Amino acid sequence: MSTQMLAARGGIITPEMRLIAQSEFVAPEFIREAVAAGRVVIPANINHKNLVPCGIGRTLRTKINANIGNSALTSDYSAELEKLAIACKYGADTVMDLSTGGNISRIRQAIIARSVIPVGTVPVYEIVARAGSVNLGGDILLQVIREQAEQGVDYMTIHAGLLREFVPMAMKRKLGIVSRGGALLAAWMSENARENPFYEKFDEILEICRQYDVTLSLGDGLRPGCLADASDEAQFAELRVLGELVQRCRAAGVQAMVEGPGHVPLDQIEMNMVKERELCDDAPFYILGPIVTDCAPGYDHITAAMGGMMGAFYGAAMLCYVTPKEHIGLPDSDDVARGLTAFKIAAHAADIALHRPHARDKDDEISDARAVFDWEKQFSCALEADRPRRYREQALAVSAPVPDSHGSEFCTMCGPEFCSVRLSARLKKAQKH
Amino acid sequence: MSTQMLAARGGIITPEMRLIAQSEFVAPEFIREAVAAGRVVIPANINHKNLVPCGIGRTLRTKINANIGNSALTSDYSAELEKLAIACKYGADTVMDLSTGGNISRIRQAIIARSVIPVGTVPVYEIVARAGSVNLGGDILLQVIREQAEQGVDYMTIHAGLLREFVPMAMKRKLGIVSRGGALLAAWMSENARENPFYEKFDEILEICRQYDVTLSLGDGLRPGCLADASDEAQFAELRVLGELVQRCRAAGVQAMVEGPGHVPLDQIEMNMVKERELCDDAPFYILGPIVTDCAPGYDHITAAMGGMMGAFYGAAMLCYVTPKEHIGLPDSDDVARGLTAFKIAAHAADIALHRPHARDKDDEISDARAVFDWEKQFSCALEADRPRRYREQALAVSAPVPDSHGSEFCTMCGPEFCSVRLSARLKKAQKH
Repeated sequence: MSTQMLAARGGIITPEMRLIAQSEFVAPEFIREAVAAGRVVIPANINHKNLVPCGIGRTLRTKINANIGNSALTSDYSAELEKLAIACKYGADTVMDLSTGGNISRIRQAIIARSVIPVGTVPVYEIVARAGSVNLGGDILLQVIREQAEQGVDYMTIHAGLLREFVPMAMKRKLGIVSRGGALLAAWMSENARENPFYEKFDEILEICRQYDVTLSLGDGLRPGCLADASDEAQFAELRVLGELVQRCRAAGVQAMVEGPGHVPLDQIEMNMVKERELCDDAPFYILGPIVTDCAPGYDHITAAMGGMMGAFYGAAMLCYVTPKEHIGLPDSDDVARGLTAFKIAAHAADIALHRPHARDKDDEISDARAVFDWEKQFSCALEADRPRRYREQALAVSAPVPDSHGSEFCTMCGPEFCSVRLSARLKKAQKH
Repeated sequence: MSTQMLAARGGIITPEMRLIAQSEFVAPEFIREAVAAGRVVIPANINHKNLVPCGIGRTLRTKINANIGNSALTSDYSAELEKLAIACKYGADTVMDLSTGGNISRIRQAIIARSVIPVGTVPVYEIVARAGSVNLGGDILLQVIREQAEQGVDYMTIHAGLLREFVPMAMKRKLGIVSRGGALLAAWMSENARENPFYEKFDEILEICRQYDVTLSLGDGLRPGCLADASDEAQFAELRVLGELVQRCRAAGVQAMVEGPGHVPLDQIEMNMVKERELCDDAPFYILGPIVTDCAPGYDHITAAMGGMMGAFYGAAMLCYVTPKEHIGLPDSDDVARGLTAFKIAAHAADIALHRPHARDKDDEISDARAVFDWEKQFSCALEADRPRRYREQALAVSAPVPDSHGSEFCTMCGPEFCSVRLSARLKKAQKH
């Protein structure tokens, strides 16, 4: 068996590369070369049979990941499958199953079977859920990774860059370690006075990943959890190790991306993106947010989409969505939809600004539709159509009756007399005569 | 009577300047100097008695304006006063009454009487509502402006920069003229073959504004209505005239700010902010959004807050909020709240990035509260507290019971076993021993 990366290096353009080239409006050779170099990854486990492949890299359309999964507090099997359906409906490019509650393996199997988009996981959750955090150093670690790989997981977050020596750096912070995987590992390392087991077993992990073509997502266990902690020595010490691990992945023919912050003030986002590119040799950067202010709980889909837009503009390849429930509770289907819509906007705005091929097509179409009051066309161009459709219906329902002479050529916002689009259309006609 | 600007030039630090200096954590002399130069405006009509003054300028905290007002389609008096209350509750720094329906004068009077924040208007709406658009060139124009000034309006949007010769430029666009005032004027100028009456009567308008210290908000009647129309010759031709009008305002001792786009792709925002500063000699830039993608109707509070954040970061002084109903219908109270919250986030994120004094205080406080699971403190630091409070209650309600041994020191997102903050706290304690 071979990975997409090894195939690319052998000069082979795989069917996956060809499909991605088509959807990204670039040449297949452009994709092959980027995959060979590690600048683009194609998370595509050989056992994920119904997958429609997706390319992730700075030079391609910005991708969005949606996290789903249960927790120990709520653990409903069918709810997770519903979230998967919602994630696909609202345009997720990949989905991560972050279940930490019961039935983890069964939920994951069902998700992979139903998902046409790549599925990612964070194996440390299943390891801890099955064996308890005391056994992080045991054989269970590779066992879980192998089982998940065999099941068809397309990419896995492995927190192998959080070395024991970095833990004291993180303890100087306001919020310490906010990554769940990172915190579990740091606690284990401190209590057992041992090095990070994912780091120590990295070669064996690579072996498994190469066998199934699992893409490694090198996790940032030390991502900052608040603005005050952003861009500190702990964060960048780990990032340097992630850069080394990228090279080890590439040497093994394993695809790798790098995970990034977190909470970052707006004026530090560009620097963070540039630093990853330098330290990690342009490996695709997969960022969580970043959230640009700490004090908007309940609205972190917005704070994070804002930072994500700028992250993508400055070079991030994939944005992990954040839902309105971040920092408070587990998202439900509605939160998944709202988080994704905010991030679709962020990714789309960045793609337009980066002049990605055809990125602005829908914007131009909807603007043409606005000029001629074609509401159905407007809805069909909308990144999310249910809400604007509902708003339009509501607006029509409460409107005062309008004289027939006005027709329907005005917007439900301002009414016919003050409709600028109506006035503009009249002006255009007048100028033609 | 004298304006804040004339007082400042005379070396006087007014009580308004002193209050603003206090709330902005700068020296009173800093404010006086900026007001004298026209880099900061203080919209404070001498007849607006219960006003708490507010300073608007690039070097101060980013301000947010909320538009309220009825339309010909919906015209409920008490609804507008409710929107005013909501606007204040959710942190608007100024409010504009954009009523175009019935009872415009009465609604405005009630709003001014109840508003402690500056009130702005767009007089062309009342002019057209009272006399019809055919009479734009008549005496009604100055009459309405004088009546509004006497009533206590703190700032007025006047579209005096849209000259007749620019109209054909705008007709080349996908969406023509999307400013309501701009479209009304362009139609009138074309149909009557006459120059913009606001431009022709600008000296008389200045006379009135100086008498009551009305700040002029030089409107951008040619702001782009879609990404395709952004940064075109029509937009910048008008901006150059606005720059000249700024100088005429200053020469007359009248405070002036400049209004800006609109719909602008992310990669053109910085250039737009710089251009205004150059062409308008650093007059405060008051921008609408900008919206960074056209195809997210129903979510334009988000698309516009994203662009607004970047606009503020690059030098805009005030952001006009956009509600989720933009392009579709007239906002209700709930839309006002949601629009304002999105823009509070945008302004706050920009202020943090610009290192405005004490801008990050709440972020640091909420992060400290997160570290110790102090939920009440978190809500008190939140830019909007109702929603996160509701989410927390919902999360607690659906949670499975947790063993008492865990106490309440975990977040309702992940549960006790996987709570990174709980693990971090344990680690910090361990390191101290």
